[in-house]
Amino acid sequence: MVDFSVAQAREILRSQAFSRLLGTELLEFGDGRAVLALNIQPDHTQQNGFAHGGILAYLIDNAITFAAGTVLGPKLLTAGIGVEYLRPATGPRLIATAVVTASTRRRALASCTITDGDSIVAVGQGTAQTLEG
Amino acid sequence: MVDFSVAQAREILRSQAFSRLLGTELLEFGDGRAVLALNIQPDHTQQNGFAHGGILAYLIDNAITFAAGTVLGPKLLTAGIGVEYLRPATGPRLIATAVVTASTRRRALASCTITDGDSIVAVGQGTAQTLEG
Amino acid sequence: MVDFSVAQAREILRSQAFSRLLGTELLEFGDGRAVLALNIQPDHTQQNGFAHGGILAYLIDNAITFAAGTVLGPKLLTAGIGVEYLRPATGPRLIATAVVTASTRRRALASCTITDGDSIVAVGQGTAQTLEG
Amino acid sequence: MVDFSVAQAREILRSQAFSRLLGTELLEFGDGRAVLALNIQPDHTQQNGFAHGGILAYLIDNAITFAAGTVLGPKLLTAGIGVEYLRPATGPRLIATAVVTASTRRRALASCTITDGDSIVAVGQGTAQTLEG
Repeated sequence: MVDFSVAQAREILRSQAFSRLLGTELLEFGDGRAVLALNIQPDHTQQNGFAHGGILAYLIDNAITFAAGTVLGPKLLTAGIGVEYLRPATGPRLIATAVVTASTRRRALASCTITDGDSIVAVGQGTAQTLEG
Repeated sequence: MVDFSVAQAREILRSQAFSRLLGTELLEFGDGRAVLALNIQPDHTQQNGFAHGGILAYLIDNAITFAAGTVLGPKLLTAGIGVEYLRPATGPRLIATAVVTASTRRRALASCTITDGDSIVAVGQGTAQTLEG
Repeated sequence: MVDFSVAQAREILRSQAFSRLLGTELLEFGDGRAVLALNIQPDHTQQNGFAHGGILAYLIDNAITFAAGTVLGPKLLTAGIGVEYLRPATGPRLIATAVVTASTRRRALASCTITDGDSIVAVGQGTAQTLEG
Repeated sequence: MVDFSVAQAREILRSQAFSRLLGTELLEFGDGRAVLALNIQPDHTQQNGFAHGGILAYLIDNAITFAAGTVLGPKLLTAGIGVEYLRPATGPRLIATAVVTASTRRRALASCTITDGDSIVAVGQGTAQTLEG
């Protein structure tokens, strides 16, 4: 079991200037699961007024990394992510729920679903690894 | 040949509030290729002071979509992206170069490389489709 | 609700010469879910005697397509897949379970997990679309 | 520079029972690049008579791994792949060309294009890593 509390995780999120800029909150953290939330602001939109795909990709990246952290600990890096966009995100609040689907001692795979209220707007998967000691 | 000039593409980029927030520039656009640039600001970083992975994913999403636009026209949506992170992006300026690798009348696949000066920091691929008429 | 029975799905699997070559079985089919099984044969291995990664990628491709078929019907095509390998598959029997995570009328996203007995050896995700009428 | 000749690479391909079953040939190998070829046989098809998507995913997996081997050496494992299908592969001969797009001492990212004669039928990307010593 790794020693990585939700308080530590929130501290890491706060120390990400980009996450502060976007206003991301960590709602849940632990046991292979992390949930992030973000209120869509006018600054987050693309040309049609929807949340930019980059916002969704950011949430998937970050939620997967936090979920992986619950099993690998805080010293990890995200190797890659895949994002599938399903619908425009019309908001007003995005919830990204990431769950570890499989892990070894040094690697964790997680999948993530983003909703904007009732609808799923994007799904993703990713892999994170511990830093080499 | 689609009718989609670099001036129109820059206008679309400017109409993305999120891209204005980040300060993204469109350096090249045409013939299956789009190049975006972004100067890393303190607001773009994660907990270790590097550009946040979400910034890289945003650049890949957007560069691939613009590259696809050069062959599909401006009415398109990005179906999905894959991102592989290689090194921390230490900046100070990220250049994302996306190239269409294959396309049909309604779909384009593109790959993208991001450098921060001399080093490649991430690569990605994605697929975009025309909106159904 | 689409009209696509498990008997029809098995008939399609049998009409895939490549799936007959590999000996793939369809264990479950319906309600956004498909489960495939394959007994690892000496012909399926790579240089170290494990199931070849291409076998795992094939299972993810096929399981995701069948799962998508339960919500989109039999006339669909798979647009793309992502595969993350976790451990060598030592067998002797691979089980690929795919579940639709989100769908619209014309598009379905699914994720898939492959086990070889007790361990997860690979996970994946993919997207399928109805054929344009 | 790694010590990994085309003769050694062909020996590894021959020692993959699955690649012998499919009839895969290694056409080129070296300098961040690997080219595989496969003649489509009736045993390789899906229900509509095209090469099965799993064959294309296998080729991308294998071509990317060999391309990565030219920079990382023979002791490596493929961490993940992404595949985008563009058109049915009508054959009769598939050529998969993989190129390393970026690498560190322990990790290589590669992209791959598959053609069946003149047309691109699928593209992919993937990442491979050296085995931990």
